[in-house]
Amino acid sequence: MSSLLQDFFSGDTRALARVITQVENRTEESLKILQALYPKTGRARVIGITGSPGVGKSSLVDRLTIAYRGKDHPVGVVAIDPSSPFTGGAILGDRIRMQTMGVDSGVYIRSMAARGHLGGLSATTADVVSVLDASGRDPIIVETVGVGQDEIDIIKLADVSIVVLVPGLGDDVQAIKAGIMEIADIFVINKSDRPGADKLETAIQAMLSLGHDAEGWTPPVVRTVATDGTGIDALIAEIDRVSEFFKNSPRRTQRKHDSVRQRLLALLEERLLRMVVEKTLPDRELNRVVDEIVDRRQDPYTVVERICKSIILESQ
Amino acid sequence: MSSLLQDFFSGDTRALARVITQVENRTEESLKILQALYPKTGRARVIGITGSPGVGKSSLVDRLTIAYRGKDHPVGVVAIDPSSPFTGGAILGDRIRMQTMGVDSGVYIRSMAARGHLGGLSATTADVVSVLDASGRDPIIVETVGVGQDEIDIIKLADVSIVVLVPGLGDDVQAIKAGIMEIADIFVINKSDRPGADKLETAIQAMLSLGHDAEGWTPPVVRTVATDGTGIDALIAEIDRVSEFFKNSPRRTQRKHDSVRQRLLALLEERLLRMVVEKTLPDRELNRVVDEIVDRRQDPYTVVERICKSIILESQ
Repeated sequence: MSSLLQDFFSGDTRALARVITQVENRTEESLKILQALYPKTGRARVIGITGSPGVGKSSLVDRLTIAYRGKDHPVGVVAIDPSSPFTGGAILGDRIRMQTMGVDSGVYIRSMAARGHLGGLSATTADVVSVLDASGRDPIIVETVGVGQDEIDIIKLADVSIVVLVPGLGDDVQAIKAGIMEIADIFVINKSDRPGADKLETAIQAMLSLGHDAEGWTPPVVRTVATDGTGIDALIAEIDRVSEFFKNSPRRTQRKHDSVRQRLLALLEERLLRMVVEKTLPDRELNRVVDEIVDRRQDPYTVVERICKSIILESQ
Repeated sequence: MSSLLQDFFSGDTRALARVITQVENRTEESLKILQALYPKTGRARVIGITGSPGVGKSSLVDRLTIAYRGKDHPVGVVAIDPSSPFTGGAILGDRIRMQTMGVDSGVYIRSMAARGHLGGLSATTADVVSVLDASGRDPIIVETVGVGQDEIDIIKLADVSIVVLVPGLGDDVQAIKAGIMEIADIFVINKSDRPGADKLETAIQAMLSLGHDAEGWTPPVVRTVATDGTGIDALIAEIDRVSEFFKNSPRRTQRKHDSVRQRLLALLEERLLRMVVEKTLPDRELNRVVDEIVDRRQDPYTVVERICKSIILESQ
């Protein structure tokens, strides 16, 4: 075992940070690390929190983290930062959060840029969650803006999914249209001291009355004011209730299966592309082919077909 | 040439719709179709329109479409619908729009679900744009909610990118945080008759003053009221000005190159995965492997490594 891994398993936070960086950068080393960690995963409860920008997800996550720390849980947080990689949003985020949490080594918070991930955001997030899981963090809270396929895939990783709304932000539109409602286990109305909370709750209940969960779960609506901690205990109670309710759920087992399947295929896809491009399209050749496609002297479909035909699969 | 393609090239709208459906479903047939169409692409101007839900993108697109129709342009519209595929949002969208446009055969509007695309949303969108391009539609307007890597990739396909904002929707947050600002060629303040338009424009200008386009383009801010058509002519003038300004831009040429490169790689990735999974992981085997990974008896990284090692690339 490498000394990095030894340090990681001994609980060293800096080693944890370095392992995550390796995983984020998808180095060759990171694959070996993930192989070594994998048997230690699958233990943590993963809580997904999603909602439009401005609904107060970060404050809510901070409050949950403090509450779980109060119960002596070692908490991991992965915050997907929708800010541009160009503006360094992810790094800034980390700094602001670090100030709130102080230097409690029982909390590990990682902001991740939403973009620029080789192999895709959801694959990287799944791997980072695995690392935190192997490091003994439980629960692991994953925070996303929740729009787009990638983010839906991330929420599907979670054991408990929370959708956060606020009164007065175009209630009908904000998340209901975003199509993430189907996977919510719990709705949170944050900033619930603002006018319109009742109206929003009515809208959520009306929407919920249209659907019907096959296993009989009705997502509760929890009102919070994250800035002063109102409702956080109730939220934690509901999180426990979701976990208990779905403990032996065949549909949750299926969802986990589907999620692992998707992750396996994403990983395979990424490795295949990398290998084939390295061998058949070194950079100069790739640029030449791209230029020919731009000029309409070749088409991408024929190029791809030609490469695929040159591949032989050995029987295993 | 298949009769479908013959009908397509003769300008038949139903053939166009069927071709797009094939492309969306990524049938084997669709690859042959795209190969045949490709030499006819690269002609249309692609206009990307993005903004949060509720800013009035659809109304704006409808107004632009009507204006271009007034100049006798055959218009294509691709609307990425963030609604869930489960609720049939994409289909509903088409119907609402069809009523606005009537039965003008010079407009072809296609709503696409944001999710569930084999090979990814941006790859499918690029192919659908290619089909519309080959069908002679020009301009082609692509409308997205503009959050997430996929949607950024889509906007990068566009020759002209428009970011739509509205007063009073959390001005600081709504799009500035979404990180799409860097790629805006034009800002639109829609619903500009509402209070707060001046404040929003000041915020945009302040943000613009921080950055500096290397080629000297300063994105104009256009005020519109899409519901009554205010500002649409000014917007069209700015779209023309963007096109003119960047006509011989080396950076735009580079962006096109990068976009084609990404598209080629996405296509290659998709085909490789499909081919390798068909040959090495038939469904039952895949499910068995996934179950073993769920139970931590195998890890996904080792599975992927084993498959990659079984692949031989013939020298071409």
